[in-house]
Amino acid sequence: MPCKLQSTPKNDGFRMPGEFEPHKGCWMIWPERTDNWRLGAKPAQKAFVKVAETIAKYEDVTMCVSQNQFLAAREALDPKVRVIEMSSDDSWMRDVGPSFVINDQGQVRGVDWRFNAWGGLVDGLYFPWDKDDQVAKKVCELEGVDYYSLEDFILEGGSIHTDGDGTAIATEACLLDESRNPHMTKEEIEATLKAYMGVEKVLWLPHGIYLDETNEHVDNIVHYCAPGVLTLAWTDDESDPQYTMSKAAYDYLSNERDAKGRKLEIHKLHIPNEVRITKEESEGVDSVDGTLPRVEGDRQAASYANFYIANKAVILPLFGDEVHDKLAMETLQNIFPDRTVEGIYAREIILGGGNIHCITQQQPLG
Amino acid sequence: MPCKLQSTPKNDGFRMPGEFEPHKGCWMIWPERTDNWRLGAKPAQKAFVKVAETIAKYEDVTMCVSQNQFLAAREALDPKVRVIEMSSDDSWMRDVGPSFVINDQGQVRGVDWRFNAWGGLVDGLYFPWDKDDQVAKKVCELEGVDYYSLEDFILEGGSIHTDGDGTAIATEACLLDESRNPHMTKEEIEATLKAYMGVEKVLWLPHGIYLDETNEHVDNIVHYCAPGVLTLAWTDDESDPQYTMSKAAYDYLSNERDAKGRKLEIHKLHIPNEVRITKEESEGVDSVDGTLPRVEGDRQAASYANFYIANKAVILPLFGDEVHDKLAMETLQNIFPDRTVEGIYAREIILGGGNIHCITQQQPLG
Repeated sequence: MPCKLQSTPKNDGFRMPGEFEPHKGCWMIWPERTDNWRLGAKPAQKAFVKVAETIAKYEDVTMCVSQNQFLAAREALDPKVRVIEMSSDDSWMRDVGPSFVINDQGQVRGVDWRFNAWGGLVDGLYFPWDKDDQVAKKVCELEGVDYYSLEDFILEGGSIHTDGDGTAIATEACLLDESRNPHMTKEEIEATLKAYMGVEKVLWLPHGIYLDETNEHVDNIVHYCAPGVLTLAWTDDESDPQYTMSKAAYDYLSNERDAKGRKLEIHKLHIPNEVRITKEESEGVDSVDGTLPRVEGDRQAASYANFYIANKAVILPLFGDEVHDKLAMETLQNIFPDRTVEGIYAREIILGGGNIHCITQQQPLG
Repeated sequence: MPCKLQSTPKNDGFRMPGEFEPHKGCWMIWPERTDNWRLGAKPAQKAFVKVAETIAKYEDVTMCVSQNQFLAAREALDPKVRVIEMSSDDSWMRDVGPSFVINDQGQVRGVDWRFNAWGGLVDGLYFPWDKDDQVAKKVCELEGVDYYSLEDFILEGGSIHTDGDGTAIATEACLLDESRNPHMTKEEIEATLKAYMGVEKVLWLPHGIYLDETNEHVDNIVHYCAPGVLTLAWTDDESDPQYTMSKAAYDYLSNERDAKGRKLEIHKLHIPNEVRITKEESEGVDSVDGTLPRVEGDRQAASYANFYIANKAVILPLFGDEVHDKLAMETLQNIFPDRTVEGIYAREIILGGGNIHCITQQQPLG
């Protein structure tokens, strides 16, 4: 049964597997806060239902729901999606859930990072975040999985990626921001990632996606598809602020090797045409002091890299941009010939500040 | 994954097993309401910890805890007890949890009765009870167990017992009370029990324990120990109002046969000396309009029959009454020679209106 482990995953022979490795299932959280999701979160809930039911075609899905919304969520979701009660402050399971690690014997454990709503009192997106900070523990308890609790290290699951084979990737913009772990040097942060992700090398991108309110999470700009193989959010438009950010990532990755000495194969995923909040969308969100406002005209950090790899499938956000949606579908189908690429129109998710990868968390098969 | 089944357990070949049959584990709920449990429920929580940790020596235990108390309960309980978040209105898992049924292939399903806080607006013990009424569904969802939902039939798990072999037992005082299912005749209620417990015969005791605020639940006066074998709460004191109640049960059971035609073996469990609420105990409980008050001097419905049968053990409430505690321990050890009888001082539980059987719910091994 769950207990706080005193060692580290690396010491104990555990590593965080790649998302493309076999899953036991997927965890999600039901959206409901009306100061982030428009119209009482009803449009977002519909999109989350679509994501959950699509993933459930390929692996088990558990939806965590507050007491208030429990019966409504149970009614809205197909019976094959498990619905359980869990409190949270919003619905970003990637960031608040545990990072799972695994050893060679197939034992699974959890890593319970501390969470401060993407920046705490410096530039966090809402206050308080105490319920979010308990989600990782609760998931591990539910699964009967032992877990490592870091008492003094802030990290969101979406700010790291791994190939499961010795290499992690993150952005300096996020992990080195003063709003996360200002008491630590880059070297100390890197050492912590190595110890708790079970990796030997960390690749550091300077930036993520332009205007990404998470301080530019790595999971919105790149995605590991296999050891040595990455997708990278890209734009050909040199006048777009995203261009220099993606170009810097591309140049860096082109000249780096991973922990195993591999050169990296980089697949560009051109970002969609600009997604901006409409007047109607803005007006559907409660304005609350202390929560990031959703202002008409604000550009959203829309990126196809924010997909989710399920067993035998890839769940890809689409934006109603015919050209780039199609291109992203094709690129991913080429990278994953043995998986079904499922595109889901995800405007209602990006309006809340993230996308399909942000609202999911895989649990590896033990 | 869970879904509402339209048939009945009996139609589908399912039966409710005896409590003495093998368990997968045990479910409990953390006490916290300060208008029922004295001193912020802290003394009761200690007693619940003792019960949970004792049962956990023999089978898996899951403690369901509100968001507010989650971290406190996790700290208070041994790591071998699983702690999960679940809202409720109080802590009586026997009455609000699912009744599990099983078929010959070892498949397990749940029965989700409706719950109205032991009497609803007629003589219920608190208001509201909506969270309690969702507990059975939530447990089934968590376990991935399909369940039958009765939309229009009020029943608490503590108001029924079964031998798992065709016979159920209940009290007329409770099941026929106008506060439960006044729209149904006794015959209709009996037919519902037969259909959802998978039994052929219902034994009807007239009464339960004197002053039992549940309208005299059967689980406080008798307990099936094996097919054909029952314990019965008893008193030799003919001046005690309990005497005529227990005597009526004894006479009835002595002259009845079960569904398989067996005569019943009845073991008397003499009740403890009177347990009355002290001034100090009464003063530790919040006085709240709409919740049953805990008044100094009130006699509690203390009974040794309210034990829990775990795998290889019997968990027995004790009351600090040396003579009767010892007698109950010995009686049960004789009935269960292959199980360890674990006595637990349970005054803090009976002060809340029930005992060890009321706060537990077994899940059969599938």
